[in-house]
Amino acid sequence: MIYEVSKVTAARSSSSTMMEKRNSQMNNVTSACIAYTGGFGSYLFGMSEVVAKQSSENNYEENTKNPSLTWLIGFLFVVSFLGLFSVVPLRKIMIVDFKLIYPSGTATAHLINSFHTPQGAKLAKRQVRTLGKFFTFSFLWGLFQWFFTAGDGCGFSSFPSLGLEAYEHKFYFDFSATYVGVGMICPYLINVSLLVGAVISWGLMWPLINLREGDWYPKGLGSSSLHGIQGYRVFIGIAMILGDGLYNFFKVLGHTCFGLYRQVRHRKSQSQLPVSRNSSPEIPQISYDDQRRTHLFLKDQIPMWIAIIGYLVIAAVSIVVLPHIFHQLKWYHITVIYALAPTLAFCNAYGCGLTDWSLASTYGKLAIFIVGAWAGGENGGVLAGLAACGVMMNIVSTASDLMQDFKTGYMTLASPRSMFVSQVIGTAMGCVISPCVFWLFYQAFNDLGQPGSEYPAPYALIYRNMAVLGVEGFAALPRHCLALCYGFFGLAIVINGMRDAVGKEKAKFIPIPMAMAIPFYIGGYFAIDMCVGSLILFVWSKVNKAKAAAFGPAVASGLICGDGIWTLPSSILALAGVKPPICMKFLSRGDNVRVDQILKSS
Amino acid sequence: MIYEVSKVTAARSSSSTMMEKRNSQMNNVTSACIAYTGGFGSYLFGMSEVVAKQSSENNYEENTKNPSLTWLIGFLFVVSFLGLFSVVPLRKIMIVDFKLIYPSGTATAHLINSFHTPQGAKLAKRQVRTLGKFFTFSFLWGLFQWFFTAGDGCGFSSFPSLGLEAYEHKFYFDFSATYVGVGMICPYLINVSLLVGAVISWGLMWPLINLREGDWYPKGLGSSSLHGIQGYRVFIGIAMILGDGLYNFFKVLGHTCFGLYRQVRHRKSQSQLPVSRNSSPEIPQISYDDQRRTHLFLKDQIPMWIAIIGYLVIAAVSIVVLPHIFHQLKWYHITVIYALAPTLAFCNAYGCGLTDWSLASTYGKLAIFIVGAWAGGENGGVLAGLAACGVMMNIVSTASDLMQDFKTGYMTLASPRSMFVSQVIGTAMGCVISPCVFWLFYQAFNDLGQPGSEYPAPYALIYRNMAVLGVEGFAALPRHCLALCYGFFGLAIVINGMRDAVGKEKAKFIPIPMAMAIPFYIGGYFAIDMCVGSLILFVWSKVNKAKAAAFGPAVASGLICGDGIWTLPSSILALAGVKPPICMKFLSRGDNVRVDQILKSS
Repeated sequence: MIYEVSKVTAARSSSSTMMEKRNSQMNNVTSACIAYTGGFGSYLFGMSEVVAKQSSENNYEENTKNPSLTWLIGFLFVVSFLGLFSVVPLRKIMIVDFKLIYPSGTATAHLINSFHTPQGAKLAKRQVRTLGKFFTFSFLWGLFQWFFTAGDGCGFSSFPSLGLEAYEHKFYFDFSATYVGVGMICPYLINVSLLVGAVISWGLMWPLINLREGDWYPKGLGSSSLHGIQGYRVFIGIAMILGDGLYNFFKVLGHTCFGLYRQVRHRKSQSQLPVSRNSSPEIPQISYDDQRRTHLFLKDQIPMWIAIIGYLVIAAVSIVVLPHIFHQLKWYHITVIYALAPTLAFCNAYGCGLTDWSLASTYGKLAIFIVGAWAGGENGGVLAGLAACGVMMNIVSTASDLMQDFKTGYMTLASPRSMFVSQVIGTAMGCVISPCVFWLFYQAFNDLGQPGSEYPAPYALIYRNMAVLGVEGFAALPRHCLALCYGFFGLAIVINGMRDAVGKEKAKFIPIPMAMAIPFYIGGYFAIDMCVGSLILFVWSKVNKAKAAAFGPAVASGLICGDGIWTLPSSILALAGVKPPICMKFLSRGDNVRVDQILKSS
Repeated sequence: MIYEVSKVTAARSSSSTMMEKRNSQMNNVTSACIAYTGGFGSYLFGMSEVVAKQSSENNYEENTKNPSLTWLIGFLFVVSFLGLFSVVPLRKIMIVDFKLIYPSGTATAHLINSFHTPQGAKLAKRQVRTLGKFFTFSFLWGLFQWFFTAGDGCGFSSFPSLGLEAYEHKFYFDFSATYVGVGMICPYLINVSLLVGAVISWGLMWPLINLREGDWYPKGLGSSSLHGIQGYRVFIGIAMILGDGLYNFFKVLGHTCFGLYRQVRHRKSQSQLPVSRNSSPEIPQISYDDQRRTHLFLKDQIPMWIAIIGYLVIAAVSIVVLPHIFHQLKWYHITVIYALAPTLAFCNAYGCGLTDWSLASTYGKLAIFIVGAWAGGENGGVLAGLAACGVMMNIVSTASDLMQDFKTGYMTLASPRSMFVSQVIGTAMGCVISPCVFWLFYQAFNDLGQPGSEYPAPYALIYRNMAVLGVEGFAALPRHCLALCYGFFGLAIVINGMRDAVGKEKAKFIPIPMAMAIPFYIGGYFAIDMCVGSLILFVWSKVNKAKAAAFGPAVASGLICGDGIWTLPSSILALAGVKPPICMKFLSRGDNVRVDQILKSS
């Protein structure tokens, strides 16, 4: 139950690939996304000849590999389980020590807890009723929105509520119940940090860099080319996230080493690793509930040595098996990925805990670039890059997804060990079922992935093009991009250092770099949604503090889960080929005049 | 103060001409409407050569009259004051005896009362704060909506919230704060009656009649031709309204005669006419407030004999003067209009009191038809019809507008006599200022009224075409239309009889014919708005009855007045030529594909 519900709610936030363009997620692409979960719509299908032909360069045989049921299942089996083991050591740090929020996981936990409320508690009953009300509202709101999304750029999610100019720069309120709810769960600081990041990037930097078009990068590349403006967005964002992530990673590592050192000296066999609580962005008082949760959560842990041995064994198997599947991918590529992956998984789990956004696809892009450039175009670097992307994405997305689930488990007092077992079973099932579903589609629709067909694969082409770009290495990046990356990497470390230096009280007024960096690539709209959530909670607290504290999480959980559950029927509708009837379109005045003339004339 | 605020709030509901197509009211037409208030955009300008040339028939000299400052002012002076006097005898019947609601007037009264709340009353203070909050919300909502109305059929007022098919039949929720507020003030019975009427007409009758296209009326006339489907809508609606109005008129007349008879017999010099309270649709308990209001309202009445003498004198002047302005309009036409007008004014004031809709333009159309057909095309029937329309509209719209003001005055304890005096002054000013403003525009813009120019006059052409149609008489009506009119006229009387026969308790479940008839012509969307208002109040009452009773009117008034006040800045924006930047458009899936192709290709 836990696993399933959280999967649904997490579906929206975890799969960044789907998130890249939420607007087009709606129609054909939704159906494609379902068949393609786990890379079938992106990197795996990007290897095929069908997609390679649509790309202009590097589409000779060395760089293509058509899908086949056997190697797909094999690849997934080798790659997917690694994430599970890398997550184990992170659990305590992220959830007990850092007390990260994981909004989707928290919301799901509220939903699940609501099913098991003891009848006696009056407050709890009222909370459940509130949750139910907002769950229903959010579900119906999703349903209502659906009717108006008969095309790209249609519907409430493209509502230029702050004007068309702001919409172009991705500043708009997109009426997403999920992110309003997430904003209500996240602390104010996170939401403000997101907004600050959005203003700095989309409000200031990108427009300024855009002015340099033709100087810093060639003209007419469009906004989605990594050679152009998109390159700055993706890589500066990654740099800042890595800066923050690595800072925290090494801080934890330092504390851990110090703790181990003390452990060895004092030989206290049962003591836990004492991680400084100062490093967490929010430190609530530990209530009785939390004490019980922590106790249960830590009771039947998977021992660290099992995790480390499991990781190493699977990594070894991978290093042997993967080059047999993709002979372009060498054993040393995979070794390096597996050496770096836990760090990046840490970064992603940490960022997701703060903001609910998993940036797995961003880390995947990093892998495409590094491995692609390393292998080189002549040696099948394109395919090696795409394969590396798959390996990387699986690890980092598992880290954030499972951490959401662990948060749910923590709050619902689920046994961590049985959760781990069920996750192993779930992963194994996924490794067989997903390729089979994809295979079904691949066999049934001959034109799968062709542009203009019923199931195009736009992301497969995008990923392939990125890989094609990647084999050119750092030289492919636009001018000054690398320098800016270094700058923001350093900035993230400096800001974090400042946050630790000024003390807990003042750190409240310094934005968190990780949160600032996320809108760099995605845009400001979800930050605005989340700030609306903050605003609602703030006003509510001013009006009635006790009520807001008691019912705020219930409202937020209702909003998040209702919207999440709606994705289920909406996916079924999409698969059944039922399309929304109406397009709510937003046109500038000039365009509107032209459209009216055209509609009238026919 | 009273007069001004109520004018603004009434602007939306009273001027049915502007209401005929609220969507197009927004842009150019808004600016036109302001310059044209009082018929300048419709019947008066419809007489001009500019518009006559756009119409195909009957545009020879006998049927045209170009505007000129002198005759415009003269015409308005002769016509406008008559309404004032016809209203006086209606005041007590509508407001004290029938206790009609006049939602806009009530809302304005709440607003005005809120300015003068004694500091001591805690509840009143909280009511004022609620009113202020919803006033602000409604105003800002109007502002927000404005940005998305860059063209016809754009914006929230064209939101096909129940689907495109329902939208075609004018069933949609149009997000109008005004009508949601009006729905909260009106009793449930009214709102349900409106909805029943909308379902019967737009859901059942018009689609059925539409199937007879080519049989009952010629094909391809379009939906706005009185020869076709529009003829059924307008005339069946009028028939039903007349049926209800006449029933109530004669009931009141009967009671009045009976009362007079008793008065004469008992010689009680000061007693008021005892009108049966049974005839009112809602009879609340008389509170202390209401007793004081009634007392003050009736204290310094304008005596009946002054009203009658005033009416007769001005009618006599009109009958002499008008044929000199329009030689096509004969003295006997005017006499008949003036004989019928008070009855129709009664109907309109009654209907407006129930539902907030003034149907002045509908009565105007009736006058066009009757006088036009009577005079005949060769004798300048077109011009006579348009002039008669002006005379009629002035009387009936004054009746409903002033009754709204009297309701406000009643609730704010304003002196009726000083209100009457200020209305006389206001009317006189209007008779001079409006033609001057129009004249300014007429002189400044040479292409005024030309299609495609900055200030087209679409309604002027519509009115002229109706007059052209009118001269053909009843023969011009589509088939079976007259029979249906008789049927619905009778039905209105039967239903009213039933309502009186079953007694007050059971009458709650029989819809009011007047309310049912209003959507016949206008469509169901405002009925849906009002039912939403009802629903909000209903749910609120279930949750907290005391709070809903105390704050419901404040919320409703805030919604109505905020939206009403927004029309002021929006008009200024329109006059200054500031156009909204975005069009929120609703396209079917098929249209959307075509539009996307077009937008992409250019």
